[in-house]
Amino acid sequence: MTDFDPSTHPHRRFNPLLEEHVLVSPHRMKRPWLGQVEAPQTTTLPQYDEKCYLCPGNSRSSGVANDPYEHTYVFENDFAAVLPAPAPAAPVAPHRLLSTEPVHGGCDVLIFHPRHDLTLPQLPHSEVLRVVQEWINLYLTRGRQEGTKYVQIFENKGSIMGCSNPHPHCQTWTLSAIPTIPSKELASLRRYSGGEPSVDGAPSGPKGRPCLLCEYAHLELSQESERRIVAKNDHWLALVPWWATWPFELLVLPYRRHISSIADLTGDEKDSFARILTTVTVKYDNLFQCSFAYSMGIHQRPIPPPENSTVLPDNDEDNIAHLHLHFAPPLLRSASVRKFLVGFELMAEAQRDLTPEQAAARLRACSENHYLDSTR
Amino acid sequence: MTDFDPSTHPHRRFNPLLEEHVLVSPHRMKRPWLGQVEAPQTTTLPQYDEKCYLCPGNSRSSGVANDPYEHTYVFENDFAAVLPAPAPAAPVAPHRLLSTEPVHGGCDVLIFHPRHDLTLPQLPHSEVLRVVQEWINLYLTRGRQEGTKYVQIFENKGSIMGCSNPHPHCQTWTLSAIPTIPSKELASLRRYSGGEPSVDGAPSGPKGRPCLLCEYAHLELSQESERRIVAKNDHWLALVPWWATWPFELLVLPYRRHISSIADLTGDEKDSFARILTTVTVKYDNLFQCSFAYSMGIHQRPIPPPENSTVLPDNDEDNIAHLHLHFAPPLLRSASVRKFLVGFELMAEAQRDLTPEQAAARLRACSENHYLDSTR
Ligand SMILES: O=P(O)(O)O[C@H]1O[C@H](CO)[C@@H](O)[C@H](O)[C@H]1O
Ligand SMILES: O=P(O)(O)O[C@H]1O[C@H](CO)[C@@H](O)[C@H](O)[C@H]1O
Repeated sequence: MTDFDPSTHPHRRFNPLLEEHVLVSPHRMKRPWLGQVEAPQTTTLPQYDEKCYLCPGNSRSSGVANDPYEHTYVFENDFAAVLPAPAPAAPVAPHRLLSTEPVHGGCDVLIFHPRHDLTLPQLPHSEVLRVVQEWINLYLTRGRQEGTKYVQIFENKGSIMGCSNPHPHCQTWTLSAIPTIPSKELASLRRYSGGEPSVDGAPSGPKGRPCLLCEYAHLELSQESERRIVAKNDHWLALVPWWATWPFELLVLPYRRHISSIADLTGDEKDSFARILTTVTVKYDNLFQCSFAYSMGIHQRPIPPPENSTVLPDNDEDNIAHLHLHFAPPLLRSASVRKFLVGFELMAEAQRDLTPEQAAARLRACSENHYLDSTR
Repeated sequence: MTDFDPSTHPHRRFNPLLEEHVLVSPHRMKRPWLGQVEAPQTTTLPQYDEKCYLCPGNSRSSGVANDPYEHTYVFENDFAAVLPAPAPAAPVAPHRLLSTEPVHGGCDVLIFHPRHDLTLPQLPHSEVLRVVQEWINLYLTRGRQEGTKYVQIFENKGSIMGCSNPHPHCQTWTLSAIPTIPSKELASLRRYSGGEPSVDGAPSGPKGRPCLLCEYAHLELSQESERRIVAKNDHWLALVPWWATWPFELLVLPYRRHISSIADLTGDEKDSFARILTTVTVKYDNLFQCSFAYSMGIHQRPIPPPENSTVLPDNDEDNIAHLHLHFAPPLLRSASVRKFLVGFELMAEAQRDLTPEQAAARLRACSENHYLDSTR
């Protein structure tokens, strides 16, 4: 029998954050029509669009006009998925299989910049830093509202990721409950930190116990060849995780110390954060020479209970969480050929067609200068 | 404060099969542009397409020609995601966060009918029955192969669900491991069956203990108004589950007795199965007067270990499983406006814009006669 070769033989990998498997079928990349790269998607948006409800001064569908803003701009979503407290109490469930839980909170839109045509990878460093600062503001402001448990910051970029307006923006949905996915991750992080650190030099998490993500970052850094690492700077690391589902999925996280939320970042760490965001989004755009679509989400510490609350002190979510970002981009082969996570993936298990190592190598090879820079 | 109204107030529901929450935001359906139904997508496919690699007699990309088949037709996927045993042994993981598991199995394509233009809702009953019989054959044949643990039957219908060939077909992926999602469901079913039945008249599952799905089906049937039920016949039920994620998601299952796999269906139950498949897929097409896209998956008993195996007898997966189908359709508002499960949904929690009760009412109101029938 031949030797096992992860870039040839189907196998399953384990995602320790979600405690799920992913089926890796790299031989599928051997299909005859593989590797074809189609004509790059050209993005020629105007700097200002009078019909855009996100451009400065324009009116939104609620009738309210945007300020003539000059940097970032935040407003409350006109069609919020969660509404402010008080939420009416839900009735007692007639059966344990029909349970309802009330939820309250709020939804914000954060516009990155007045320019309708400048996505995150195209913004100057100072403007990306303002976006980072605005995330921190939202996390703190929303977090202070009574009953807030989680502030989910996310960006849908590109129409194929359900983004309805190309003017670069992201959203925060704030909830009175920890949503399913962050809550699963917190449970995994908590379970993992039961043991002893096993990677030399990895910073430790709460109470000196290993943090899964601190340990994982150092494990990747300690590999002979940094095979899944795409970019690294003073404080942050971007890698295609061992268990990635999306073709060019990335996990972006601080690696020098255990940091539980964006509110805990020092000035240097914020700066470094803005820089790695530019690096990875520029590489993404360069991969297929297009404005690369993705969903991005920030996972971090749930909102700690207020100091005078009666919640018991063994609620150590503030220590357990390790700040990180997920990028879930759908493109697989070119600017116009995507991976569909459907049928088998929806009903059975995540499946991918190229290995995380192959994806990382391709992203590593991409320039850190945006492909449109020479033409601007 | 106003009373709680599930069709107005945001709330969370619990999915007991996956042990996850779904955020229901029905007030989002109050957006001004809601309810608009766009021009129906017209489907005018030829009965035979010489360029289709699934039509009878045509050659596939492997060079092999299809038989001149007259009913269903099965062949092994030319680009299978899993390959036959023996799979080379994976090396020992260098760290617990980098674990690999070898996997083997096979992938089949099942063409429903020689006609290139006839989807499941358009096939006569006798032909749907042949599809059901073929599923049973595949489950049994693949199940007998050494090391098989799970036979996942699924259909991707429509190009927006990643289907690359409109000739109606489905697939089976057979694996030497129970995939993530069925495995989670089995764990939930096992946990649920620890208690006492609580719904009068619900058939009981293994060892007389309640089966979550038997009990849930009877709970829905026992509600004053069958608010989430879309269709019902002698043996099968189709409903929008309390915890549905996709706008018009359906759960389709036998409700008269605990049935763990398609191989256990009696003649009557098979007939009834074929009929409910027609009913729900016809209603789907009628909803927006288009060929309604979806991913469908059959969940059932994992392959029992061979009789002479050393697996312990407390492995009662064969009893725990209750046969059911999930339909995951993306359309939300019209033949051309879908729901995107992106950003918040990928990073935090499933979210839906209309209640399961509203979705069920709309599907119930759809005719059981296909909208194209009068024009054919
Ligand atoms: O096997 P197909 O039809 O080529 O491919 C389709 O179904 C597969 C199984 O759900 C997915 O992995 C692919 O992304 C999808 O395009
Ligand atoms: O809020 P938007 O941009 O209108 O909508 C987009 O993002 C939301 C949050 O991920 C999703 O629920 C919607 O399906 C998507 O189209």
